[in-house]
Amino acid sequence: MSFVSKTRESLKAERLLPLPPSASISPPESGLYKIKCKVLGRPLPNDELEHQRLGKPTALAVFASDALSSTAYASEEIIRALVLGGIGVAAFNFVLPITLALVAVLVILMFSYRQTIKAYPSAGGAYVVTKDNLGLLPAQFAGVALLTDYILTVAVSVSAGVAALYSAVPSLQPYRVFIALGFIALITWGNLRGVKESGKIFAAPTYFFLFSIAFMIIVGVIRALGGQLHPDAAVAMPAITKQAGIFLILHAFASGGAAMTGVEAISNGVPAFHPPEWKNARSTLMVMGSCLAFMFIGISWLAHIIKPIPTDDKTVLSSISSAVFGTSPGGHAIFLIIQGATMLILVLAANTAYADFPRLASFHADDAFMPKQLTKRGHRLVFSNGIIALAIASSFLVIIFSADVTHLIPLYAIGVFTSFTLSQSGMAVHHIKEKEDGWKLGLVINSLGALSTGVVTLVIGVMKFMHGAWVIIIFVPIMVYALMRLNKQYEHEHEELTKESREALGSPILLRHVAIVLVGDLDMSVATGIQYARSLRSDGVRAVHIAVDPARADTLREQWMDLHLTRIPLDIVHCPDRRIDRTIIDVVLRETAQSDTEVSVIIPRLHRNLWWHQLIHDHTANLIANALEGIEHVNVTFVPHRISEKT
Amino acid sequence: MSFVSKTRESLKAERLLPLPPSASISPPESGLYKIKCKVLGRPLPNDELEHQRLGKPTALAVFASDALSSTAYASEEIIRALVLGGIGVAAFNFVLPITLALVAVLVILMFSYRQTIKAYPSAGGAYVVTKDNLGLLPAQFAGVALLTDYILTVAVSVSAGVAALYSAVPSLQPYRVFIALGFIALITWGNLRGVKESGKIFAAPTYFFLFSIAFMIIVGVIRALGGQLHPDAAVAMPAITKQAGIFLILHAFASGGAAMTGVEAISNGVPAFHPPEWKNARSTLMVMGSCLAFMFIGISWLAHIIKPIPTDDKTVLSSISSAVFGTSPGGHAIFLIIQGATMLILVLAANTAYADFPRLASFHADDAFMPKQLTKRGHRLVFSNGIIALAIASSFLVIIFSADVTHLIPLYAIGVFTSFTLSQSGMAVHHIKEKEDGWKLGLVINSLGALSTGVVTLVIGVMKFMHGAWVIIIFVPIMVYALMRLNKQYEHEHEELTKESREALGSPILLRHVAIVLVGDLDMSVATGIQYARSLRSDGVRAVHIAVDPARADTLREQWMDLHLTRIPLDIVHCPDRRIDRTIIDVVLRETAQSDTEVSVIIPRLHRNLWWHQLIHDHTANLIANALEGIEHVNVTFVPHRISEKT
Repeated sequence: MSFVSKTRESLKAERLLPLPPSASISPPESGLYKIKCKVLGRPLPNDELEHQRLGKPTALAVFASDALSSTAYASEEIIRALVLGGIGVAAFNFVLPITLALVAVLVILMFSYRQTIKAYPSAGGAYVVTKDNLGLLPAQFAGVALLTDYILTVAVSVSAGVAALYSAVPSLQPYRVFIALGFIALITWGNLRGVKESGKIFAAPTYFFLFSIAFMIIVGVIRALGGQLHPDAAVAMPAITKQAGIFLILHAFASGGAAMTGVEAISNGVPAFHPPEWKNARSTLMVMGSCLAFMFIGISWLAHIIKPIPTDDKTVLSSISSAVFGTSPGGHAIFLIIQGATMLILVLAANTAYADFPRLASFHADDAFMPKQLTKRGHRLVFSNGIIALAIASSFLVIIFSADVTHLIPLYAIGVFTSFTLSQSGMAVHHIKEKEDGWKLGLVINSLGALSTGVVTLVIGVMKFMHGAWVIIIFVPIMVYALMRLNKQYEHEHEELTKESREALGSPILLRHVAIVLVGDLDMSVATGIQYARSLRSDGVRAVHIAVDPARADTLREQWMDLHLTRIPLDIVHCPDRRIDRTIIDVVLRETAQSDTEVSVIIPRLHRNLWWHQLIHDHTANLIANALEGIEHVNVTFVPHRISEKT
Repeated sequence: MSFVSKTRESLKAERLLPLPPSASISPPESGLYKIKCKVLGRPLPNDELEHQRLGKPTALAVFASDALSSTAYASEEIIRALVLGGIGVAAFNFVLPITLALVAVLVILMFSYRQTIKAYPSAGGAYVVTKDNLGLLPAQFAGVALLTDYILTVAVSVSAGVAALYSAVPSLQPYRVFIALGFIALITWGNLRGVKESGKIFAAPTYFFLFSIAFMIIVGVIRALGGQLHPDAAVAMPAITKQAGIFLILHAFASGGAAMTGVEAISNGVPAFHPPEWKNARSTLMVMGSCLAFMFIGISWLAHIIKPIPTDDKTVLSSISSAVFGTSPGGHAIFLIIQGATMLILVLAANTAYADFPRLASFHADDAFMPKQLTKRGHRLVFSNGIIALAIASSFLVIIFSADVTHLIPLYAIGVFTSFTLSQSGMAVHHIKEKEDGWKLGLVINSLGALSTGVVTLVIGVMKFMHGAWVIIIFVPIMVYALMRLNKQYEHEHEELTKESREALGSPILLRHVAIVLVGDLDMSVATGIQYARSLRSDGVRAVHIAVDPARADTLREQWMDLHLTRIPLDIVHCPDRRIDRTIIDVVLRETAQSDTEVSVIIPRLHRNLWWHQLIHDHTANLIANALEGIEHVNVTFVPHRISEKT
């Protein structure tokens, strides 16, 4: 229903009543729109925006799937980095210490983000915090780094999910890119339908994964303590006793950093919680962090015991779960269930990025650092353009990297740690500036957070530089430069559009107004155009025919003279090069060459009901309109003439 | 240079002088246009149309390449049909008789077309002849059949050319579709540059092929008479002595019919000859027919002697030329030259279709049986749209049939023989109606032509029906039905547009004219829009803001009231479903609901110079214009406001 209200002035003059929906005078909806409603659900009006909130259990599912799911590959990436160091089985001695170091960073981060959530209950992402405390330029860095990481989150998670799938069903391995793209399409569809529905879709798999991994860890610990778990790798691997160097350990640490991505998701999405938003968000954050720490340590500990060698067609997690549950039919069934749960959570982890990327992009766009289209809410009140942009970018990465997690990992995590560092530094500045209750403790926590994440950023950047991190290190500044230029353009436009606009709104009309009607044939559409031109009460109406075919022009001239429309002359303008648009520009510029002239170029346009009727006619009208669009005081008017359908 | 002339009335009022080219006031050409000029050559003005004529040697190259090139596969297709009959080496006994039967049809056709060329010197294609004598509906059949065959000509010729290539260089066989598409692109480019230039490109290969095949035939005949040529196939093939049935012979005859395609090309293209067109065209036709007969008989005779078995990776023609020239280094070099010449002529044979398809399509379009766009001459005075349509359709066929000649052949030739039959029947009727000098002889020749080609059409249709001809037999009538519907639509539109248009041109303007300015923000572009609206001297100017964001609407309302534009009220129309287009339709329909109201919807539109500046803004203006385009007396005006580039 469209409700029409009026300003005070116009209310005095007349009143338009809101039309009851049943009495709508609008034409029927198009078939395309009906299909859209079928696929995406009924359209949501603006006032339902408030209702799109998440309860804590749903919010945990939506925001935690990214962080939790990274336990599916984080331990594996640590092991891969260590094994590459050529230290043999000794590699497995370092898995647990490195994991614990990363968990320490995680704990610092959790407490840091508690501060952020309280200080920025409305939108506490790295972008807003950095902008508020460090300024717009650092905020662009934080934002772009995070956006890049969201794209990688989708690519990495979906690829890892497909890896879980083909670890269980090896015959699917050749189709991994195709399957990954299918999953991305599915998640995109879910998100275009709206955040609440997607929350529903994703709640079950998150909890399913959480509980099945917890079950695996508990069973594993019991069996290990009972002496029933034996190393996998001891046989296959040479027992080199070379000592691991600090470089190797840092490299493995950098690879494990991927486990931390997604921790910031909740602070970005505080407005999606039920009120009191910040309290609910905080407690959800603590639950999420605890689960993550438990699972990460549990899996690394089991890896330390079982020592599974990572291969191309079997993930470490799948080796652990086969070892824990054995090869009996019952054990194998549980193995398959855990692989299924892993696949689901990983594919759906991409959903966290879908919850945050469009929101963050809309912040950039609100500040005029990204195209304004990203602020538009679509059919279902979500930022559809951002969702589609994310889908395209991540599909591109999946194709380029053939859905291979290990090749994607070096690009990953550096972005998210950059934004951690910037946002924690921002929080530290915030405490110093605002001096709210307990600011000193806050300052300590956030400074520690900034310092530790800064160190991690540095470690990842150095260790992974040659393996692909250089792409991100080059890409982010270039992107920030582009956004700055975009912003300058927007500001320039805004300035040019608004300065003196108040004066301009009262400016007098031009001295002379000429209406030019473009005449193709002597037909009803031209008659409608001439009728409209005369209703303009301009200082002169000209009919102009652009003559590509001289013979046709002669006929037209004869016909026109027979009409005796003495006040409307027909000008035949020859166009031997057949470039109608350039010829019309010429005609029009001759008019505007006289000072203070407003020109209306009137183009009769046929409208047909059926699409194929539109197709069979040329689109010269649009060509002309586009050609003239840059010339000031040359106004293009389409005068419609409707062709009825043949019965 | 654009030359501006005027009707008598306007000449009295004022005189616009033609602008010398140096003093052009048009804006500079776009980069895209400059690239177009680089790729296609300088644009040709209309008055150069006359000069695009061909001398006889060039015309032979352009129009004969199709007919002559078919000798590269016609004998092979006859042999393939016979060999499939399972009659062993006996197959080769029938090659020569079938070839001679086809040459008899060819001779009849040549004399038939001499009649046509004389009777229709301006454009004597099957379409025009059939239309003139049998009516519009049969003409559609003749035209569509021929257009279909032109598409197949491109697909078959290019595929056969690629086959000649990989017969010499077997390693290229896997890339045949890709290579074929590349050749189509190349020919398309040549033809978009214009017919004269493409004549130049194609003259050398045609003559090269003609002379190298003639050389091969002569050497082959000499060696055969000297007893130096021995059968290839006798060893590999079981010497079944089963007699060939009439069915098998007719089937082989139908396959060989492909040799006749392209004979009509000259009669279609008479206007492209130098004057006297019909005489030059006639003598070129006789030369072409003689060459075709000589080559076809020569190759079939050599096949009869050498008995080469057709295989998937070696063409019959290539087997013949290896046999004739032997395996010595010199002989192999000549073999390679002949393969090269064959490939070139076949690829370029497609060019004949490119010379005729667009012209024929433009005839259909002139009679309102195809989209009008096909009558437009492009940058270089050629029918660019027809050329592009042909390129797309033939590329599609090449992809579908994997560039395989033998699978394409059954679809081929039936179209061209249908048009032969219709056009010869038309000529017979022409002689009876016109009774020109020598009409009786003409009637005999054309009746014989119609009869013989009619029989061949029937033979091909029946023999090849199951092998693919059914596609054409079903497609052509469906297409003709579609063209008839299109024509009815055009006629209906023309009638509706022209009836009473003379009266309508004098009809009075509507009683009331309301201008609605769409307001997004209070900026310069809106000021320009308001200024224009006021210059219309309408009965009322309304400013309308479609409010997606109520807060922004409130701000705008305040700002507007501060302006004290008492005569222009601002209406805020709420749009909670964010569907701006539907809301505007609602606003406008409320105005037109009052009788006799003309509405001008004024949309301020920003114009930016750089393409990426256009990209970063949304295109709501176009959305709105499209939504309103079907509503009569609702006129959409774009008021431009130009944003300067930031310096």
